[in-house]
Amino acid sequence: MKVDHIGIATHQLDEALALWQDALGLKVDSTEEVTEQGVRVAMLAIGETHIELLEPLSPGSPVGKFLEKRGPGIHHIAVKVSDIRATLAQLKEKGTRLIDENPRVGAGGCLVAFVHPSSMNGVLLELVQRI
Amino acid sequence: MKVDHIGIATHQLDEALALWQDALGLKVDSTEEVTEQGVRVAMLAIGETHIELLEPLSPGSPVGKFLEKRGPGIHHIAVKVSDIRATLAQLKEKGTRLIDENPRVGAGGCLVAFVHPSSMNGVLLELVQRI
Repeated sequence: MKVDHIGIATHQLDEALALWQDALGLKVDSTEEVTEQGVRVAMLAIGETHIELLEPLSPGSPVGKFLEKRGPGIHHIAVKVSDIRATLAQLKEKGTRLIDENPRVGAGGCLVAFVHPSSMNGVLLELVQRI
Repeated sequence: MKVDHIGIATHQLDEALALWQDALGLKVDSTEEVTEQGVRVAMLAIGETHIELLEPLSPGSPVGKFLEKRGPGIHHIAVKVSDIRATLAQLKEKGTRLIDENPRVGAGGCLVAFVHPSSMNGVLLELVQRI
């Protein structure tokens, strides 16, 4: 198990990208628009994990609402799992509150599912299975 | 460069520890009290990085104030650097707002310094040099 990425919400992706590249010397792995989740995404490699910068496509999207409520900052942690359906089934059995009971397609075409912060110590946890 | 740990603020360390161990099968690397920063800390290994659970020793400590304002959740990201003084000097030259202009001793006896969220896209960034 490893941390796949750390998601950071930002109002302005290009500015945030310049900031993280300049401050820490990180390099961009990929950028894409994930319309299903209402975000523009840039991935910066750091060791075996990534900083994922997220700019909302609209104010009503989940990241847009987060920005309105809390401002820019750390949005979620994503953990890489080998079998996302098995992990979701185990969490459900333990009584964990899931946002997604079934995985959906996320950035980079991988399978993703979110666990509710109320069950994870206030942390929005994303499970990721890379295909 | 890699992510040294992800800091998560919690009201009750033992409950949070049980939760993260149970949900993701993580193992505890170490626990300690860092009186200088006013926290009880538990480190859980995940790949090359760690989840760092933080319980405040008092309500007036930085983590205590964070909990009062925002509730439990992700508190900071720590990045491992090889020469913390050189990194701080580079950041200062770029005009980055630093919380610590000089490193101090953190959990595990390493050198740490914090960068202000106002200069890092709302993210409280910790630099860590392990000795």
